[in-house]
Amino acid sequence: MKDMEIPKATAKRLPLYYRYLKFLFDSGKQKVSSTELSEAVKVDSATIRRDFSYFGELGKRGYGYDVESLMNFFGKTLNEDILTHVALVGVGNLGHALLNYKFHQSDSIRISAAFDADPEIGGRILEGVPVYPVTELVQQVKEQKIEVAILTVPMEAAQPIADQLIEAGIKGIMNFTPVRITTPDDVMVQNVDLTNELQTLIYFLSHYK
Amino acid sequence: MKDMEIPKATAKRLPLYYRYLKFLFDSGKQKVSSTELSEAVKVDSATIRRDFSYFGELGKRGYGYDVESLMNFFGKTLNEDILTHVALVGVGNLGHALLNYKFHQSDSIRISAAFDADPEIGGRILEGVPVYPVTELVQQVKEQKIEVAILTVPMEAAQPIADQLIEAGIKGIMNFTPVRITTPDDVMVQNVDLTNELQTLIYFLSHYK
Repeated sequence: MKDMEIPKATAKRLPLYYRYLKFLFDSGKQKVSSTELSEAVKVDSATIRRDFSYFGELGKRGYGYDVESLMNFFGKTLNEDILTHVALVGVGNLGHALLNYKFHQSDSIRISAAFDADPEIGGRILEGVPVYPVTELVQQVKEQKIEVAILTVPMEAAQPIADQLIEAGIKGIMNFTPVRITTPDDVMVQNVDLTNELQTLIYFLSHYK
Repeated sequence: MKDMEIPKATAKRLPLYYRYLKFLFDSGKQKVSSTELSEAVKVDSATIRRDFSYFGELGKRGYGYDVESLMNFFGKTLNEDILTHVALVGVGNLGHALLNYKFHQSDSIRISAAFDADPEIGGRILEGVPVYPVTELVQQVKEQKIEVAILTVPMEAAQPIADQLIEAGIKGIMNFTPVRITTPDDVMVQNVDLTNELQTLIYFLSHYK
């Protein structure tokens, strides 16, 4: 993570830009100004222009951006043309909801395999996704050459399952557990801690009214 | 949001510190060093010391921190002693999973009312939470004086429902839809965009290997 050309904050906004551009394109719009874009995605236009500047000359100031070419550019940057297969471990309430989750407007993300410790669930197909017994995790992830995993297991299983995922070759983990898992340097973890998000919101409400 | 004494990044780490301290306390531990804390929550110890410095003298360097008093301090800061009632709008797959979600180790957050447009669901009690018809949203939120809401509705309903929530007095919205909703300055929005998180992770994997 040392030689990042693009700041993480910028990279995090790319899917947002991309989705809005796709929406505009689907609505038949051809041009968009940074002001319009700013209004829609709630990012100030100076930030948008700075973000875009990392990618070179994407449009002429005052003329607006060409929706289609910008969409294609960001789509390519985001690997939208490549299908990424994702494994999901832990088909509890949240895991099950994520199997159903559309990962909106993204045709490039597919949960291809799920795993659960419950023998009642393992071996079934849920929402079109095969659920394997968790004992087959390493083998299946290796065979299917999956590199990204979603972790929705109970707290106490987080680190042991993460270790298995890493052994199986996983390079990116979206971690929904509150546990901060330990991984080697070449494995990225994206923590999505819903309690944290809600507590932070409540904290700000009560302190900065 | 202009007169923030504490940086947002620090505030976002508070629930994390708090949860780990609670875990230590429950395990009977009395002292913790910033190095141990750093290991466990995966935040470098310089950042931890800087974060703590915003709250004054919390411990002596080299002696470690007192687990109980630090836990109590952060709990108080996070309003852990006050129960925050939360409304949830949209009891689809994700909404339903969140009704079940424990908001781990937090005794201070309770989803007290849910709303759904589906007449099949409205009027029932799900996971112990009353689900009202969405037509009663403004009235119920006002009556129950709820100020925080979780938004798990379909995209097209996001802005209209947000408008109703604001009319009802909601001051903080945890927005799970991919729509960037428009709100007045005194209403905070915390966007939790799962597609974004996953796409960002995939983007980093393919660009910074």
